Amino acid sequence: MNLTHIEHLGIAVKSLETAIPYYEEVLGLKCYAVEEVAEQKVKTAFFKIGQTKIELLESTDPEGPVGKFIEKKGEGIHHIAFAVDGLQNALDTVAERGVTLIDKSPRKGAEGLNIGFLHPKSTFGVLTELCEDPNK
Amino acid sequence: MNLTHIEHLGIAVKSLETAIPYYEEVLGLKCYAVEEVAEQKVKTAFFKIGQTKIELLESTDPEGPVGKFIEKKGEGIHHIAFAVDGLQNALDTVAERGVTLIDKSPRKGAEGLNIGFLHPKSTFGVLTELCEDPNK
Repeated sequence: MNLTHIEHLGIAVKSLETAIPYYEEVLGLKCYAVEEVAEQKVKTAFFKIGQTKIELLESTDPEGPVGKFIEKKGEGIHHIAFAVDGLQNALDTVAERGVTLIDKSPRKGAEGLNIGFLHPKSTFGVLTELCEDPNK
Repeated sequence: MNLTHIEHLGIAVKSLETAIPYYEEVLGLKCYAVEEVAEQKVKTAFFKIGQTKIELLESTDPEGPVGKFIEKKGEGIHHIAFAVDGLQNALDTVAERGVTLIDKSPRKGAEGLNIGFLHPKSTFGVLTELCEDPNK
């Protein structure tokens, strides 16, 4: 398995409208896209810093995964996503090594990436995403 | 202010001894250093992936910041650290823009970096560190 870099960090916020100005005007990053991912019940806003994107996540439904996260833990870092070459192989490999998968096969995520999540109960509390750019 | 990349992610774990094998044997990363930071009441283990380090944090004292974090939120991502050119200026700038600082002036962190923390109450729940390599 070859993890190349941290593709993005997902950060749960209550409101994109109030959080985007912090990332732009205080930290000096630039929001280059806002996208709704209906399947995951979130609206997302993207920033780039070095190799990594920051993906702000606003829940569109209190019963969605980000809504529940904020209810339980408050706003904060929600997940880490590693870029990998060969996503299906990587998912199979970590499963063989004892990790519980949320996604046994790749599915479509934001920005057209193929993604798969590992369950935080087997990753020491860190909701972990593996992702691959199908156009690379 | 010029944030160049994500220098590291701090991840709170109950035990380095049990978490390091996950990062090494499941994810395939290599632990290149273990260091105690007495002032912050943690033992740390470092991994590198692309531009970014992963810094596992095991508390050495339940009353330390990582001990309290785990008590309250469980294991998981604890903070994000951005590399910046000009740390004192960056701290002054974010303070002028309304952020509450934990550190008004740089102090020494792990790996010889100069660091300063921003309070999560003014960063939408994300404990945020700015850091600068004095040898760069």
